[in-house]
Amino acid sequence: MAKLVECIPNFSEGRNLEVVEKIVDTLRGREGVKLLDYSSDADHNRSVVTVIGEPEKLQEAIIDMAEKVYKNIDMTKHEGGHPRMGALDVVPFVPISDVTMEECIEIANKVGKAIGDRFNIPVYLYEKAAKKKTRENLAKVRKGQYEGFFEKIKDPDWKPDYGPEEVNVKGGCVAVGARVPLVAFNVNLGTDNIEIADKIAKIVRHIGGGLRFVKAMGVKLEDRNIVQVSMNLVNYEKTAVYRAFEMIKMEAKRYGVPVIGSEVIGLVPMASLIQCAEYYLQIENFSMDQILEKRIME
Amino acid sequence: MAKLVECIPNFSEGRNLEVVEKIVDTLRGREGVKLLDYSSDADHNRSVVTVIGEPEKLQEAIIDMAEKVYKNIDMTKHEGGHPRMGALDVVPFVPISDVTMEECIEIANKVGKAIGDRFNIPVYLYEKAAKKKTRENLAKVRKGQYEGFFEKIKDPDWKPDYGPEEVNVKGGCVAVGARVPLVAFNVNLGTDNIEIADKIAKIVRHIGGGLRFVKAMGVKLEDRNIVQVSMNLVNYEKTAVYRAFEMIKMEAKRYGVPVIGSEVIGLVPMASLIQCAEYYLQIENFSMDQILEKRIME
Repeated sequence: MAKLVECIPNFSEGRNLEVVEKIVDTLRGREGVKLLDYSSDADHNRSVVTVIGEPEKLQEAIIDMAEKVYKNIDMTKHEGGHPRMGALDVVPFVPISDVTMEECIEIANKVGKAIGDRFNIPVYLYEKAAKKKTRENLAKVRKGQYEGFFEKIKDPDWKPDYGPEEVNVKGGCVAVGARVPLVAFNVNLGTDNIEIADKIAKIVRHIGGGLRFVKAMGVKLEDRNIVQVSMNLVNYEKTAVYRAFEMIKMEAKRYGVPVIGSEVIGLVPMASLIQCAEYYLQIENFSMDQILEKRIME
Repeated sequence: MAKLVECIPNFSEGRNLEVVEKIVDTLRGREGVKLLDYSSDADHNRSVVTVIGEPEKLQEAIIDMAEKVYKNIDMTKHEGGHPRMGALDVVPFVPISDVTMEECIEIANKVGKAIGDRFNIPVYLYEKAAKKKTRENLAKVRKGQYEGFFEKIKDPDWKPDYGPEEVNVKGGCVAVGARVPLVAFNVNLGTDNIEIADKIAKIVRHIGGGLRFVKAMGVKLEDRNIVQVSMNLVNYEKTAVYRAFEMIKMEAKRYGVPVIGSEVIGLVPMASLIQCAEYYLQIENFSMDQILEKRIME
């Protein structure tokens, strides 16, 4: 099997679907690159793309996509419920097959340098690609968001890794990184009270004393008039999806609020959900080799 | 991804492992066909093989295997604890990927016709491939077994679908069919009282008024000194694994008996467990296309 890297660029447009299509279209019809998925959220005003490909070809594709993003998104006009630091917000590279984390870090550096040089955007390397400990955590990198970066960037601690030392007014800044596969998992609560979602998010997430590999925040779903705990599970092998789910349920109880559903956003590794079936069905001695499809792929 | 069909041929030899190897060997080293698993049982004097492949290539492989079976197994000398009607006993085809049940029925017909014509064996089509309602249930088709078929075949109701209208003395008869994937799932109870497992099995299974696609019985696990409800879920899409599991839990409660674990036996389709994660995590609008591995396989 060929070397395969996944990239999950997030950009700050989720309402104007014509613009979304223009941007995503740069990833289509390329040899050695496959667009797997993309979805836009109007509340978040944000789109998430999943694309896989051979390392070199994927790099080129992402740089072409970045160009379209900077041509079409103006951060001075951006509003939305999701934290963001730029038009192209985060660009993580994930090793999938026959590729090491080191190779993904190298790709992040090449793509980061290209975005900095060609589009005049301050670039921060994050997670496994971070050159400083303080930049490993995306939430810390993004803190202050687009608006706050005009000050933050002046702090010597927050000098960009690539690109200019001034925020690009239209394009903002961007975080480019390398990481293990992530599960985007949101839990919907039967209330419109955002404070409850916020409180639960703070309890369940790592920085609040919660689970080691959970990032979480409260989000309001205006169209459904409910709130949700929106999570990124950054290491599902160590912090299982069901554990985060049950913890939210447990905390919601104290407010008499029911969990009314959940969402898996984008693509997830099969094991992240099989693990949950194993837990709830109390399966003993299960092996992933018992999955028919897995045997077929070998 | 390529069209993929699974076949689980059962043949009447489980003691002479040299013969077993000769037979299984016909499935090895073939392009477009992959032997996934096989196991022999001396008590049953029977072997079960799991093989997958592209439809045409799998057909050819199974016919070659049948030839070896008829050359090496003599039913006049067969003894064993498992019901059987022939040297090659049952040959079910199961749609796995990008294949419809109709296509599997067609394969069953082609393979059935070839076995009838080339090896002079009476062939009965069963389950989804059955041409008569009375041949859907394998137990009914096989009733009377090898020895009884010398009379049964004279009954116009039991005229074979393909092949001669007389039992092949050495090879017997064969059942060739198409069916949905089966999940073998056992639930362990925290008691050594076999009566409780039996009672719950009778309630949860179809013939006892329970779930439509569940076959179940109580089994004692001597080495662990517990009992289990042993099930075959013959259509996991319509009778989900979690539903059978929760029903057993519910019934066990009335005896104050806890469910202490479960087992998945052999291979299972990914969807049968993903479905359970969806249920317990209350995932809304999930699509199997969100499974990364599934997308990479396309």
